[in-house]
Amino acid sequence: MAHNSVANADRNAPPITRILAEFVSNHPSKGWDDTVEHEAHRTFLNWLGCAIGAARHPAVSAALAAMQEFEPAGQATIPGRSERLDMGGAALLNGISSHTFDFDDTHLKTLVHPAGPVASAILALAEKTGASGRDIVDSLVLGIDVACRLGAGMYPEHYDRGWHITGSTGVLGAAAGCARLLRLDTERTAMALGIAASQPIGLREQFGTMTKPFHPGAAARAGLTAALMAKHGFTSSPRALEAARGYMQVVSVRQDWNKVTEALGERFEISFNSYKPFACGVVIHPFIDGCAQLRTAGLDPDDIESVELKAHSLVLELTGKTSPTNGLEGKFSVYHGCAAGFVFGVAGEAEFADEIVARADMVALRGKVSATVDDRIGPAAADITVTCKDGRRLHVFVEHAVGSLERPMTDAHLESKFDSLVVPMLGASKASRLKSLCWSLSGLDSMNGLCETARP
Amino acid sequence: MAHNSVANADRNAPPITRILAEFVSNHPSKGWDDTVEHEAHRTFLNWLGCAIGAARHPAVSAALAAMQEFEPAGQATIPGRSERLDMGGAALLNGISSHTFDFDDTHLKTLVHPAGPVASAILALAEKTGASGRDIVDSLVLGIDVACRLGAGMYPEHYDRGWHITGSTGVLGAAAGCARLLRLDTERTAMALGIAASQPIGLREQFGTMTKPFHPGAAARAGLTAALMAKHGFTSSPRALEAARGYMQVVSVRQDWNKVTEALGERFEISFNSYKPFACGVVIHPFIDGCAQLRTAGLDPDDIESVELKAHSLVLELTGKTSPTNGLEGKFSVYHGCAAGFVFGVAGEAEFADEIVARADMVALRGKVSATVDDRIGPAAADITVTCKDGRRLHVFVEHAVGSLERPMTDAHLESKFDSLVVPMLGASKASRLKSLCWSLSGLDSMNGLCETARP
Repeated sequence: MAHNSVANADRNAPPITRILAEFVSNHPSKGWDDTVEHEAHRTFLNWLGCAIGAARHPAVSAALAAMQEFEPAGQATIPGRSERLDMGGAALLNGISSHTFDFDDTHLKTLVHPAGPVASAILALAEKTGASGRDIVDSLVLGIDVACRLGAGMYPEHYDRGWHITGSTGVLGAAAGCARLLRLDTERTAMALGIAASQPIGLREQFGTMTKPFHPGAAARAGLTAALMAKHGFTSSPRALEAARGYMQVVSVRQDWNKVTEALGERFEISFNSYKPFACGVVIHPFIDGCAQLRTAGLDPDDIESVELKAHSLVLELTGKTSPTNGLEGKFSVYHGCAAGFVFGVAGEAEFADEIVARADMVALRGKVSATVDDRIGPAAADITVTCKDGRRLHVFVEHAVGSLERPMTDAHLESKFDSLVVPMLGASKASRLKSLCWSLSGLDSMNGLCETARP
Repeated sequence: MAHNSVANADRNAPPITRILAEFVSNHPSKGWDDTVEHEAHRTFLNWLGCAIGAARHPAVSAALAAMQEFEPAGQATIPGRSERLDMGGAALLNGISSHTFDFDDTHLKTLVHPAGPVASAILALAEKTGASGRDIVDSLVLGIDVACRLGAGMYPEHYDRGWHITGSTGVLGAAAGCARLLRLDTERTAMALGIAASQPIGLREQFGTMTKPFHPGAAARAGLTAALMAKHGFTSSPRALEAARGYMQVVSVRQDWNKVTEALGERFEISFNSYKPFACGVVIHPFIDGCAQLRTAGLDPDDIESVELKAHSLVLELTGKTSPTNGLEGKFSVYHGCAAGFVFGVAGEAEFADEIVARADMVALRGKVSATVDDRIGPAAADITVTCKDGRRLHVFVEHAVGSLERPMTDAHLESKFDSLVVPMLGASKASRLKSLCWSLSGLDSMNGLCETARP
């Protein structure tokens, strides 16, 4: 049975605080291959689109109002908003906005959403410090590596028990990324990791409330602050991550030290990052994908007589709402997901708007969809059979949905997703310029132009 | 055996988030007897003295330099310093300074140092909001009650495992205190507690580094921010504290729900707060106390031939350094503690200065002290026998040291301690005025005069 008593503590843990600090401070700039480098650009583009898309959400506005009580200096941009905040406030807001639609990236091995804490922190720091795009890419890759490796060393026990792993490991990723951006030496990087280690953030109980996206935001701000404190000589335990009463042993009943350090500097966890094509829970994705494939093949929603789904039991357990009455409920309805796939071919935030979920044709189409449990179908797969009014029967089986590691979103997909999030906020011209800036991120002299373009 | 798996979660926990939120938002102002009211004044005085005393410590200066990178507005005073910071930065700094000397208050049932997170947060908020002294006292009592009650519900397992309970429960106490000061209604107070619940702060591994006092500071800032976010409508789980994947079940293997709520509003945990008379580990206190008693009775250190201590084994295990070479080592030397008692009659921060520990007469006096283990003597007691050069033998047995709940510091003791911390920083005149202001705290129209006086 799992235990969590200091009497059972591992007192011979490897010095992972020092190992990670050396890695973060010493690994060469662009010390990885082109696929890693390209994935970093995709991660940044996806993160920025999500952050801008949700920038006017009530969660973001409420947090902004709270931050304004501090009368902050306007040091940093909040993508998608005209207001500016100090670096800490911007890190918080950017982390909140990027996770609010649950549409950001996922490191599937750990369920960490790594860009939220890491990119939010380093972009908030970049304008004031004059960081280049190269610095940003380096800090992003290294910060994400730290967060995901720590996550891998504690997954799944840590997550299962109730930690929202995005925040609890993200604070370390943000500290690592900011330490790198500030060019801290190994010793001060270790201190930054140590200060951050005392601040694991996030409970799964908060899912469904604004505090869920608060977690990557608070992690970004705490990690950034930890790095700044270390820069000025603030000290922490050099064994803060691994000691018997240190981070990993306190917040998880199991530690796999090897997963934290194996192939460090050779394999980069950002390579295993994935991006959601649809703004809802991942088990609906293959169904939306399959219905959209039928639409692309020429199926007109008006021709549909009935639809039979075969789905793993988990799909209906999680997303079995037959009659959703608003957008949020729509995200938990595989029936609405199918209707969106048939009618729109996409299922972004707009297709989960309250008015779309309530639209008469969508209600009618959902009513034609029935589902049966078949656990021979995997939980990440979908089996869809459409009977048309003219008697035709169409069948599609989706083994891996678009967005999975097996069928990753193409760059073009990511651009479409970005447009769906950014065009309504900033217009097509700025969206287009931002995409170019993201793809050329590593060559930017500073982040000022990108930040300027990201404001309304 | 202790477990920490969600499969074993308690799904029938009482609604403590709501219960505590109702209590914090609805309990009448000064809804307690005069002894509680007076203890609140003592707690505030002791906290302020500790905060001012350490205000120029390198830990505080490093954190201040980091905060200044945010170019903050000068909203709030940092007692003992001329610089001002925004409310969040001031909460952080005040929490750090008040805990840096390990000289602050202790809720002995839980080992929570409650004023650090709570008073640091509410004073930082007070200048901007125009809070009265009455508001401060109410918020302090209620905030401390929340932190200590949550601590009692998880102690000792939570602390034993490695959480620095002052920060991990202090963030809730700070949120509660700030919610009260902001006059949030019950629902928003519950949201503030919920946002704070996602941010337990503090690892015992950090003891001995600057990150130890960072814990109450970070807790103060996070609690204050949580209350401001709730004020502006930010949401969290209304069962954040008690749910299966909520705060108490995630950060502790055991929950005693009854200890959180028993006699709520009738018994106030601040009544069990204690204050250290000496700036060192508590097991040395009875020895310093006994030697100081002999000094008061007329013993001249020059008359001492030899000193025999009988001590519980724990005392020598923790504080058995015979030849300390600097101030920090002096805090772990029962021999230096006795010499300070004989020579000065007190053992504040000044008596643990490097130059005092190294002084020839102190070295010589320490050399005359020997100790033997006797486990019939309790770990909180001391047995001291002095042989004088003229052949006299003096004996003193201290069952409970001054500062224990059995022999609490008198108000006069607390004033002396305050002076020892504040006079070197601000001078005797300001120290005297501050003491008056602290004793009349509940009648102050605003905190502006006190804050003004607390600056150099």
